[in-house]
Amino acid sequence: MKMRGLKSGLLVAAGLGLVASAWGAESLQDVMKRRNLSQQDLLAASKTYVPTGKRDEFLAFSSGGQSGQVIVYGIPSMRILKYIGVFTPEPWQGYGFDEESKAVLAGGRIDGHDITWGDTHHPAISETDGKYDGQFLFINDKANPRIAVIDLRDFETKQIVVNPVFKSDHGGAFVSPNTDYIIEASQYAAPLENRKFYPLEEFNEKYRGGVTYWKFDRKEGLIDTKQSFSIELPPYSQDLSDFGKGPSDGWSFTNSFCSERYVGGIEKGRPPYEAGCSAKDTDYLHVINWKKAVELFKQGKTKKINGHDVIMMDTAIKEGILFLIPEAKSPHGVDVTPDGKYIVVAGKLDTHVSVFSFDKIMAAIKAGKFESKDPYGIPVISMQETLHNQVELGLGPLHTQFDSKPCVAYTSLYVDSQVAKWNFCEGKVLDKISVHYNIGHLMTMEGDSTDPKGHYLVALNKLAIDRFNPVGPLHPQNHQLIDISNDKMTLLYDMPIPLGEPHYAVAIAADKLKPGIRYAVGTNSRTDKPSPYGVRAGEEKTTRTGNTVEVWGTAIRSHYTPETIEAEVGDDVIIHMTNLERAEDETHGFTVGTYNVHMSLEPGKTSTVKFKADREGVYPYYCTEFCSALHLEMQGYLLVKPKGWKPEANTTMAKAAYTEDDYKKQLKKIADTQAVIDSVVAYITSTNYKDFPDVVAMVDDAFDQAGKIPDVKAKHEAAAAKKDWENACLWAEQVWQYQVKTADLGLRAKTYLEQNGAKKIK
Amino acid sequence: MKMRGLKSGLLVAAGLGLVASAWGAESLQDVMKRRNLSQQDLLAASKTYVPTGKRDEFLAFSSGGQSGQVIVYGIPSMRILKYIGVFTPEPWQGYGFDEESKAVLAGGRIDGHDITWGDTHHPAISETDGKYDGQFLFINDKANPRIAVIDLRDFETKQIVVNPVFKSDHGGAFVSPNTDYIIEASQYAAPLENRKFYPLEEFNEKYRGGVTYWKFDRKEGLIDTKQSFSIELPPYSQDLSDFGKGPSDGWSFTNSFCSERYVGGIEKGRPPYEAGCSAKDTDYLHVINWKKAVELFKQGKTKKINGHDVIMMDTAIKEGILFLIPEAKSPHGVDVTPDGKYIVVAGKLDTHVSVFSFDKIMAAIKAGKFESKDPYGIPVISMQETLHNQVELGLGPLHTQFDSKPCVAYTSLYVDSQVAKWNFCEGKVLDKISVHYNIGHLMTMEGDSTDPKGHYLVALNKLAIDRFNPVGPLHPQNHQLIDISNDKMTLLYDMPIPLGEPHYAVAIAADKLKPGIRYAVGTNSRTDKPSPYGVRAGEEKTTRTGNTVEVWGTAIRSHYTPETIEAEVGDDVIIHMTNLERAEDETHGFTVGTYNVHMSLEPGKTSTVKFKADREGVYPYYCTEFCSALHLEMQGYLLVKPKGWKPEANTTMAKAAYTEDDYKKQLKKIADTQAVIDSVVAYITSTNYKDFPDVVAMVDDAFDQAGKIPDVKAKHEAAAAKKDWENACLWAEQVWQYQVKTADLGLRAKTYLEQNGAKKIK
Repeated sequence: MKMRGLKSGLLVAAGLGLVASAWGAESLQDVMKRRNLSQQDLLAASKTYVPTGKRDEFLAFSSGGQSGQVIVYGIPSMRILKYIGVFTPEPWQGYGFDEESKAVLAGGRIDGHDITWGDTHHPAISETDGKYDGQFLFINDKANPRIAVIDLRDFETKQIVVNPVFKSDHGGAFVSPNTDYIIEASQYAAPLENRKFYPLEEFNEKYRGGVTYWKFDRKEGLIDTKQSFSIELPPYSQDLSDFGKGPSDGWSFTNSFCSERYVGGIEKGRPPYEAGCSAKDTDYLHVINWKKAVELFKQGKTKKINGHDVIMMDTAIKEGILFLIPEAKSPHGVDVTPDGKYIVVAGKLDTHVSVFSFDKIMAAIKAGKFESKDPYGIPVISMQETLHNQVELGLGPLHTQFDSKPCVAYTSLYVDSQVAKWNFCEGKVLDKISVHYNIGHLMTMEGDSTDPKGHYLVALNKLAIDRFNPVGPLHPQNHQLIDISNDKMTLLYDMPIPLGEPHYAVAIAADKLKPGIRYAVGTNSRTDKPSPYGVRAGEEKTTRTGNTVEVWGTAIRSHYTPETIEAEVGDDVIIHMTNLERAEDETHGFTVGTYNVHMSLEPGKTSTVKFKADREGVYPYYCTEFCSALHLEMQGYLLVKPKGWKPEANTTMAKAAYTEDDYKKQLKKIADTQAVIDSVVAYITSTNYKDFPDVVAMVDDAFDQAGKIPDVKAKHEAAAAKKDWENACLWAEQVWQYQVKTADLGLRAKTYLEQNGAKKIK
Repeated sequence: MKMRGLKSGLLVAAGLGLVASAWGAESLQDVMKRRNLSQQDLLAASKTYVPTGKRDEFLAFSSGGQSGQVIVYGIPSMRILKYIGVFTPEPWQGYGFDEESKAVLAGGRIDGHDITWGDTHHPAISETDGKYDGQFLFINDKANPRIAVIDLRDFETKQIVVNPVFKSDHGGAFVSPNTDYIIEASQYAAPLENRKFYPLEEFNEKYRGGVTYWKFDRKEGLIDTKQSFSIELPPYSQDLSDFGKGPSDGWSFTNSFCSERYVGGIEKGRPPYEAGCSAKDTDYLHVINWKKAVELFKQGKTKKINGHDVIMMDTAIKEGILFLIPEAKSPHGVDVTPDGKYIVVAGKLDTHVSVFSFDKIMAAIKAGKFESKDPYGIPVISMQETLHNQVELGLGPLHTQFDSKPCVAYTSLYVDSQVAKWNFCEGKVLDKISVHYNIGHLMTMEGDSTDPKGHYLVALNKLAIDRFNPVGPLHPQNHQLIDISNDKMTLLYDMPIPLGEPHYAVAIAADKLKPGIRYAVGTNSRTDKPSPYGVRAGEEKTTRTGNTVEVWGTAIRSHYTPETIEAEVGDDVIIHMTNLERAEDETHGFTVGTYNVHMSLEPGKTSTVKFKADREGVYPYYCTEFCSALHLEMQGYLLVKPKGWKPEANTTMAKAAYTEDDYKKQLKKIADTQAVIDSVVAYITSTNYKDFPDVVAMVDDAFDQAGKIPDVKAKHEAAAAKKDWENACLWAEQVWQYQVKTADLGLRAKTYLEQNGAKKIK
């Protein structure tokens, strides 16, 4: 057996690769019969199947629920493209395992405690003029009231801010029409002061809810906590929120449950919260003039609580920025129509949706016409006088989103396990469809913006029960894709959610997103600024300062520089790595065995890991992303020596017995391989390959790999001149490694051109 | 606006729910034209689309790569059903956030360090007589050499064991034909002793590889570390392994790379590992008589290293259990054919696969015919004399799996980005297909067992590049589904992997899996034993012992018992929760805000969280799984009081002003709702609903909910008798809550019956 080089392999590849496109034996009718598919099933399949290399029309950003992550999936294929690490450390992305991302997570520490998860609820995409602009994503954590900012240029979490006054949240994130503010509403009432206990007997007096308006600095891509403020609200379990738009711009709306202010205590014989919190027919919709609230904040009409500016209820009432309207009980959604004229509230324990008229609300406020005040003195506007209409939809109406067609809305019905399509202008039901099962939120395409896109609706069902192959007691969720382009809704697809129970999701037209595929070399991706630790090839170094060993290293197919890191027991080790690659998808990983660190180094990124080398020993490090045929050999050793250890004199690395003949064989292999590369290059350059951007990128990358050869060639020739056959052979081998990587890319480019109809141009 | 009760809502639901199955306007031809689908695309769609409620044929268990998890997906739909938490804490599952799972993760601590991630590589399904039996799954962690055991009855991780002598691993997990042993091979050579440094100059003398044979106790479902042992091997970067089967049962095979024993050091001017580790044409296949090794272990012919039994190389050589065969360089897979007669090795830097004959290997060993010894004295068998054949497949052959058709194998070609179908008996190539891009491992259905199932192949491609909508510099992987049921392979589906870079995967016929959907009430799911902390309804209690507050609580739709937990600052708080539900998919969650704990309570499970209540204040707790219409009201408060705090005298909870009229309204609502429930029950019982197991389960659950009513009814009637209208109203409301849950289930059952062709039987 001999290594026969690349040449014959290439011929095999070229000869047989193409016949594989011949088609299989079964006809469509055979398949439908065998798989027991109906015509409807086939139509649904045809509406959702996305062939290889083709793109989805919309991208959905879904809360990852208790996974603490954000889920990104394509519509209509319903394929999950990414879980973005947000509140929970995630090692694939190095999130929480490198220092740059640890700094982001540290922003989410609460009162000195690390929080290593989140209960993500409501994602929101940044808007310009009320339309999704695809630049940023925001999402809240209900369990530990926080908001995270994700940059959609690289799909990375850049910031986590802790709500300074709430003890839980729910109704966030939602953005104002130009994303100047992000709203976050509390959920379970508690004292606003931190580290302050009041007994439940003082619930009405000392426990409070609220809403926070976070100022977003679009240029920095960060929330500006100093320019953010909250409004104190009664202890009503504030729930969801929405910003007004168009005519209602400047106002925000927040609904609530348990406005009974009931305190349970089943262990003491009291009826449980679920009984006491749903006893009355109505709860309260909070109507807030947030633009005026911003003015009050700027005028300093706030009280500092935990160092944060809070507009107290008394001030809000006095200044006329806070009103209540009764709403059907225990609602979950409050949704402003795309035209900004109406506010739709679904009472989860009622059978109706209520459509409130913003004009009527304004008229009542202007006229000072209030039916009462709540126990805290907040003016209550009459429900009847502000209703545009009320529509009986079914059991458990929960959340409403909108169609591209005027006046058409969709509301989830939790108890009925249905989606209702209805006309909110005329107040009539248009259609219903069953879902499986117990739908929570629903999502239409850009359906909470001023410019909904129609086409699809996703039902975020809370129970899957029997829909999928069983995978144990803990079931996936079921997101069902529904076609809403016709009068009748039709079910297209059942999509299991494999991790986390998404609460809410938003979907944007895919062509609005323009994410990057590489960073400027040496970028700290979490700050989007040059890392002080980035180096270029040849600048790598290792330093020792006191008990700290610090490495400025690089990664490229397929070796690290350095390949050895030496430390003494007890040293602090700091390793910076820069990925020198420019090619799309050429990510490298880095870990040091048993030291619980990991980096994901996308092209250009610089990351840092730190740990204490507290145990003598030998610890391999290696690349955790399969990056080339030599991936497994992308390795090194961290050597942790006893304090003061010195090598014995005259120890040298073992020598292998390489001969001049070995070197000649290497040269022959290199020459053979070069001939193959030349023929592939000749093929590629004989076509209109420049018309294919993906191929141009591959060719660039191939030339990049080939461009590394001259330096290494000089090394093997210099060694050969000195008859150092070991170094001559090994550096020659390294030339061949670069040739293999060059050929890999060239072959991929060739196949691409053959399969995509490239034309001969010479 | 009034709460109009359930009745009219039910009528709306019944009237409109059925018309939704009418079909949309677009024809199949319209859709194909609009979406630019070819006939091939449509055929592929028809072969992969799984309609709602239908099941996949196979379940794949894929390594989650650096995510540290296991991914479960269905074939042919390629829908991901679950990410199982294995080496990385995962909050949705409570994994690493409850005490029971923390105990599993603690088994994976290394030398006192918590490890919060893993680099999962090779999953293996337990086998009986060489066939997948669907009982257990094993997977290794390369970065921190460990093996995890997952029970496929509930898809939960039950055990993590740390390799006592390796510093990294790669070639595991693979199981012996009856799963008595699980093999794990090291990867990067290092001293076997823990906490021991030797300089790289002593690499040949002091650095070692090895294989570990973990004894699996199937009855306990756990690895028995005391009955497990290792064999010392040369520092050759052992890679993948496989067990013999049939005629080769009793032997195991482990390949290697870098048998050059090259030590890099690019920072010192030495050629990198990738050059030095690929310089020679061949590496070594290790051939081991493991059944005889077990005997040697039992005879005590081992040396204790780090307290673990190791058969040293000298012993292995002397006892004749260890042999080497040269193999084409840098191979990745070593795969025993289903008949156990051949061992297939693919040389990643060669163009060939080599098929070794087990008979020839045995003949050489029996004859004592060796071509040489390696530097450690291990007998080397001739490659040429043991080869059955060698087949030139293309560039970068990597891993081989098998078809149900005799002699048919599939090998991934990394550099060519292709899959080759070939005949290993006759040594000829049958077909090739291009994949996208740079395939690592591949997987056929039960394709590494004695009984492969054919039908499908999945290409685990390492690069996706342009295949999907862009989601930033870090790309998803691309698992491509290929139809192998015909002579020509055809591409069916591109599946993005959204989290982690899977290394290897295994797939089993779905009908071999019989996972449960609930636990016996009060089960610790990690030990599968009754939890000492499980309680039934009515047994809940809270105790204080010294500074420890301990809660034995329960969860059920939709309240916890207790609803208040009282502690003083600095107390240790221990909360046990038992989910009393029996209904499928009725999981509850539990968290206490900002204390970084979370439980996922599937039906019957008992979990525990512990934390120090180190900050005065009011901390809401709530259910994190949307469990019913009253889910948001499933809440409570942890009150952390200052030390020694005493309530003021005469404080009582605020009373709401309920009247006898309110109570009468409640009674009316209950009566109306009961009439509706009765009509639904009448409908269901008029059908052959007992023929539908899912409906029977729903009906059971509905009766379970309704069965809670009499107790609560007695409470509201007793309160009413005392004219305590608040308690009368609230307990009556609680009756209604149970009615809503009963109706929810009844309606789901009714819809199911209507949609699934139930027949009237009376």
